[in-house]
Amino acid sequence: MKKISLLGATGSIGLQTLDVIKAHPDQFKLVSMSFGSNISSGINIIRQFQPHFVAVKDKETYEKLKLEIPNEEVKIGYGQNALIEAAIFDGVDCLVNAVVGSVGLVPTLKAIEHKITIALANKETLVTAGHLVTEHARKYGVDLLPVDSEHSAIFQCLQGENPKNIERLIVTASGGSFRDKTREELTDVTVEQALNHPNWSMGAKITIDSATMMNKGLEVIEAHWLFDIPYEKIDVLLHKESIIHSLVEFQDHSIIAQLGTPDMRVPIQYALTFPNRLQVKNSKRLELWEVGKLHFEKADFNRYKCLQFAYDSGKIGGTMPTVLNAANEEAVAAFLNGKIKFLQIEEFIERAMDKHENIAHPGLEEIQEVDQQTRNFVQTLIS
Amino acid sequence: MKKISLLGATGSIGLQTLDVIKAHPDQFKLVSMSFGSNISSGINIIRQFQPHFVAVKDKETYEKLKLEIPNEEVKIGYGQNALIEAAIFDGVDCLVNAVVGSVGLVPTLKAIEHKITIALANKETLVTAGHLVTEHARKYGVDLLPVDSEHSAIFQCLQGENPKNIERLIVTASGGSFRDKTREELTDVTVEQALNHPNWSMGAKITIDSATMMNKGLEVIEAHWLFDIPYEKIDVLLHKESIIHSLVEFQDHSIIAQLGTPDMRVPIQYALTFPNRLQVKNSKRLELWEVGKLHFEKADFNRYKCLQFAYDSGKIGGTMPTVLNAANEEAVAAFLNGKIKFLQIEEFIERAMDKHENIAHPGLEEIQEVDQQTRNFVQTLIS
Repeated sequence: MKKISLLGATGSIGLQTLDVIKAHPDQFKLVSMSFGSNISSGINIIRQFQPHFVAVKDKETYEKLKLEIPNEEVKIGYGQNALIEAAIFDGVDCLVNAVVGSVGLVPTLKAIEHKITIALANKETLVTAGHLVTEHARKYGVDLLPVDSEHSAIFQCLQGENPKNIERLIVTASGGSFRDKTREELTDVTVEQALNHPNWSMGAKITIDSATMMNKGLEVIEAHWLFDIPYEKIDVLLHKESIIHSLVEFQDHSIIAQLGTPDMRVPIQYALTFPNRLQVKNSKRLELWEVGKLHFEKADFNRYKCLQFAYDSGKIGGTMPTVLNAANEEAVAAFLNGKIKFLQIEEFIERAMDKHENIAHPGLEEIQEVDQQTRNFVQTLIS
Repeated sequence: MKKISLLGATGSIGLQTLDVIKAHPDQFKLVSMSFGSNISSGINIIRQFQPHFVAVKDKETYEKLKLEIPNEEVKIGYGQNALIEAAIFDGVDCLVNAVVGSVGLVPTLKAIEHKITIALANKETLVTAGHLVTEHARKYGVDLLPVDSEHSAIFQCLQGENPKNIERLIVTASGGSFRDKTREELTDVTVEQALNHPNWSMGAKITIDSATMMNKGLEVIEAHWLFDIPYEKIDVLLHKESIIHSLVEFQDHSIIAQLGTPDMRVPIQYALTFPNRLQVKNSKRLELWEVGKLHFEKADFNRYKCLQFAYDSGKIGGTMPTVLNAANEEAVAAFLNGKIKFLQIEEFIERAMDKHENIAHPGLEEIQEVDQQTRNFVQTLIS
């Protein structure tokens, strides 16, 4: 029985993780969790899974939750300390980090210190502090297991292989909701259009990141850290069907790929069962003859500027990826709130990166400071 | 330094194996070899690689060869015993069995007894006596490494995986030289047309087997034995580009695939370097955006009758796959010699199978007897 802590339980990845836990009650037990402020969904989960500890975002949510579940045996906390308490709760074997944004970083570091295996869906953790997280994981001998479909694909392709033989990682990209639009046509796109992803049903932030391809850029940085591969050996390949989730080329030019129907439960479950596999309830089998054709195109870095920014920031390193990520989070939130236009997302990221004086080997506090400074800067651009 | 015995050195797989050996003189040394009667090619190889022992098909070739290379330090033999001697020559670490036809069976069994790793390109060995070969390999703890691109693909996809989690093997098929023809259009096709394979440059027999899809049928039987998977869990998928060389589906419906440009040196070398990989000299990198599209179709068992015969014979088991293979070898040879028409290949195989009284658990001698009887029977149909 694997004891699981789930951060971000009411989000898209969180709910699908709960599906996986529910489908295998003999294998998994939810012992702690966190959510932001979605009380109705949070209560449902608490009643169904009966974790021992629940962390919520703020005092207001905490007070409301206390009124709703006074008699149940669940300890509740709020804020950053509660998030850490949930992550390292007594007996946790595996932390599924599915929060959105850089708030997932400190709980991950703390869980690593407690030798808890990390199933990582929170890509900002690696983007903002990849060097700290991977060093920490090596130091404590803890596995960092990817949950993203692309990184899970690469991770699956690498099983049984010597990492020294890797020639190239090829991360596939659907191209997002605007893949058939020219740059000119992007000027006046709406939030509603941006949220209409062709293949995957995901949270709002990641769907916008798909449309700008920042999502792929963040994944490239994440792949760099997860698999210890230089940026020169990571390619992005446009593949609109999202059937091949990613590929690895080896030095003999043999390529191993992982494929499947779009179902996030598969990579989530793989992170929980690794190195074993289990059936996924009601998952759809992929029949390639039903699909008929798979399409591939070269990724155009002029069309997708955020992808270029991500490679640039990754190669510069230091605090630059933190700036990329923080600026993107603020800009995407502003776009979702109708405050800025779609193409201003990349404009504000570029301005934040241009303005930033890079720190080469930042510690946690410097990262947090740069993160906050960048958010403030982007806020001044927005207002 | 891996010491290699190569049976079938002058054939297509043999020559490409020699390319691999030549490219890595620090890794591989050819110590023994065999060829049939292609003396000029054989002499070139002997002069270049200087093996210690050479087996040829018959006394006539032996005599001619003796005249050509009297002064070199190469021992020469002929016939079945010489083939065995080449296979188990002193110090051999790995036997590359690249002969065509069921003549490869006994040397393989003998090499297994000498605990020599088998790199198997001779599919008839597993088709005619899969139960004997795999039992033997298990008994002596010897690895059977596939050289066929499809089986190498499956083998690569299975690295780091638990075989218990396999849901399905998916063997891809180009459809061969007549894939765009209807059954009616096959009536009067010529040998020349049949030898014009769209993707791979291979020997004559295997190219005809591609056109009838018997090649894929033999591969299904081979996959059954190599990976110990029931026929119900082996699918054939038409994929005309031959870019995806085969796929494995696991119980979580995750699919792992192996891809590459058509270059037999890659799977040959993988068998020699397994579990490591090395660079393949001048091999072309696969860029999927250059390919643009990959196509997939369901395999039609009415269109490709040989594929149906192969599944039927495999499921029946016993000596039936021996009949399938022997009848096919004779019929293909007759077609190549202009003695029968293309569609008579499958007709003669069907008649041989219909006539055969199956033996459930045949030993080596029974297999050889059935093999010979079948060949005689098909010869009576031809003449």
